[in-house]
Amino acid sequence: MKLPAVFDRHRAEIDAEMRAALAERELPLYHMMRYHLGWADDRGNSVAGPAGKALRPTLCLAACEAAGAEYRRALPAAAAVELAHNYSLIHDDIQDDDRERRHRATVWSIWGKPQAINAGTAMRVLASLALSRLEQYNVPAQKQLRAQRLMDEASLRLLEGQYLDINYESRFDIGVSDYLSMIEGKTAALMACSLEMGALLATDDAHMISSFYDIGRNLGLAFQIKDDILGIWGSEQETGKLQGSDIRHRKKTLPIVYALEKADNGLKKELVSVYSNGMVERDGVVTVLATLEAVGAQSYAQRMAESYCDAAIKAMNGLELPSPAKNDLMEMARFLVQRDF
Amino acid sequence: MKLPAVFDRHRAEIDAEMRAALAERELPLYHMMRYHLGWADDRGNSVAGPAGKALRPTLCLAACEAAGAEYRRALPAAAAVELAHNYSLIHDDIQDDDRERRHRATVWSIWGKPQAINAGTAMRVLASLALSRLEQYNVPAQKQLRAQRLMDEASLRLLEGQYLDINYESRFDIGVSDYLSMIEGKTAALMACSLEMGALLATDDAHMISSFYDIGRNLGLAFQIKDDILGIWGSEQETGKLQGSDIRHRKKTLPIVYALEKADNGLKKELVSVYSNGMVERDGVVTVLATLEAVGAQSYAQRMAESYCDAAIKAMNGLELPSPAKNDLMEMARFLVQRDF
Repeated sequence: MKLPAVFDRHRAEIDAEMRAALAERELPLYHMMRYHLGWADDRGNSVAGPAGKALRPTLCLAACEAAGAEYRRALPAAAAVELAHNYSLIHDDIQDDDRERRHRATVWSIWGKPQAINAGTAMRVLASLALSRLEQYNVPAQKQLRAQRLMDEASLRLLEGQYLDINYESRFDIGVSDYLSMIEGKTAALMACSLEMGALLATDDAHMISSFYDIGRNLGLAFQIKDDILGIWGSEQETGKLQGSDIRHRKKTLPIVYALEKADNGLKKELVSVYSNGMVERDGVVTVLATLEAVGAQSYAQRMAESYCDAAIKAMNGLELPSPAKNDLMEMARFLVQRDF
Repeated sequence: MKLPAVFDRHRAEIDAEMRAALAERELPLYHMMRYHLGWADDRGNSVAGPAGKALRPTLCLAACEAAGAEYRRALPAAAAVELAHNYSLIHDDIQDDDRERRHRATVWSIWGKPQAINAGTAMRVLASLALSRLEQYNVPAQKQLRAQRLMDEASLRLLEGQYLDINYESRFDIGVSDYLSMIEGKTAALMACSLEMGALLATDDAHMISSFYDIGRNLGLAFQIKDDILGIWGSEQETGKLQGSDIRHRKKTLPIVYALEKADNGLKKELVSVYSNGMVERDGVVTVLATLEAVGAQSYAQRMAESYCDAAIKAMNGLELPSPAKNDLMEMARFLVQRDF
């Protein structure tokens, strides 16, 4: 499955806007950010790094266009959400002790955890400052403030989700509803904010704006669940992660949490035992995969991702949107649940 | 030396405004914040904790009043700078591996570093949201945005200073000018912002606003240098820290950096050797104190603190300020360099 064309269409402008957000920030603190974003190597030399999908900013621009304005008006917001997402990855890698991301050493594994904490928090502050470029698109001050507050609230939701994610690490008494609370914060909140800000910058229609929040929230949930599926059954070549990667890291993703709920006592005991014993080895992965198979966890998760995607598409259909922009959004929605990378 | 009366006069309203910033935030993420702020114990039960000085918010309110407005208008900004300061303490304790602050266990030592990273970053986001209450004082949207940008830029300066502070830990080739660059960011930037925001909310007079930035910057430098003096020569009873505390933690504060510049080769070698050997023991503290004595580091630092304080007072005298508010500021300025706690 290919990345929808809308991603390529906006990539260069999103990249330029993000570089503008870091322009004239030349101290070493910002080198760590350029490294993380794939723009520089660990010595600060420019490189043509592997670009991420830029999912959130692309959705932000598409929402702005769909809600009736020229998408460029939302570029500062698009850069802001991408920075607000990337700051969380820098801290996430510290919290999870992960030494690698996208085949590169993580920031903390090069500069140490104390400096990586600084780099992450500073990137979150830069996300806020990126919004100040809305001024150049003549966005009224009141609307700039509202965009700022939406992003701040979404960041709190994200951190509440991060809290739960870490809290669940040592627990086995969690079920699907706990999992959903966690990803509502960790993933859906910023995605919802990306689309809501895009719409906010295009229109004053409160129904339109809140509909885009709902669309984003549903897409965020669908995206995360698909990510969970790929984290277990995705191919190494496509995802850049070892197969069963999330099992090896003992992540409590949806298939696992579902199995904890559905497996009979014997299987559940095995699962808990594998997940309790430090690093999960090859045999452990095989055991867990068998349990997931026994309860039908993969098809359950795929159905759930699709139902969130359907809810998003239904919400889009409830709005009168211009068709090229609507098609972009539909294509993105389907990509999120059908992708294999 | 007693705390000037202006601190007591504003304490209750600052506290109420900060509590308003956390109102209805009831998830465990926010318990960590309430604990850090001294409002709750580690189980979330309310306690009457030891109040800090609330230096930054008090300066913010005093600047607002001095610049000609009712100080209450600046309460949301006062709460914001106190939260933006306290977030940095939560992260600082993680970065320095400090298990205690103000005679209490630090957040990370109770909840672990991953959760403390979340609590700190979330507190910084809440600082931003605290500014949204400026709306209630009919502050124009354009001015609210400007306050937001000032605080964001100050936070970046603070993080740049934190970067240097950590970077200096392993270096002995730093001098007084490197030290000053570090505290310009780590301490002076947010203090300057506190006064600048206070003035901004009172007036449109650009000269007045930028003068308050300068006053705050000079007071911040004076405050930090006095803190350095107390961190070495302060009495345990007054400061709540062991005497020689900063030496034990091998901090590169002004007296140390000055000694690295001024001591003859023999003394410098001794100093470097004590600072290179893990935890500095009692004998090491005695050696370092002798070196500081030999180069006159304490009186050098005190003179420097006073010269920054004088610069702040000179800037105040250059403005036509109403006398009660001006007297408060003068009293605070003198307190910052004469205090023994």
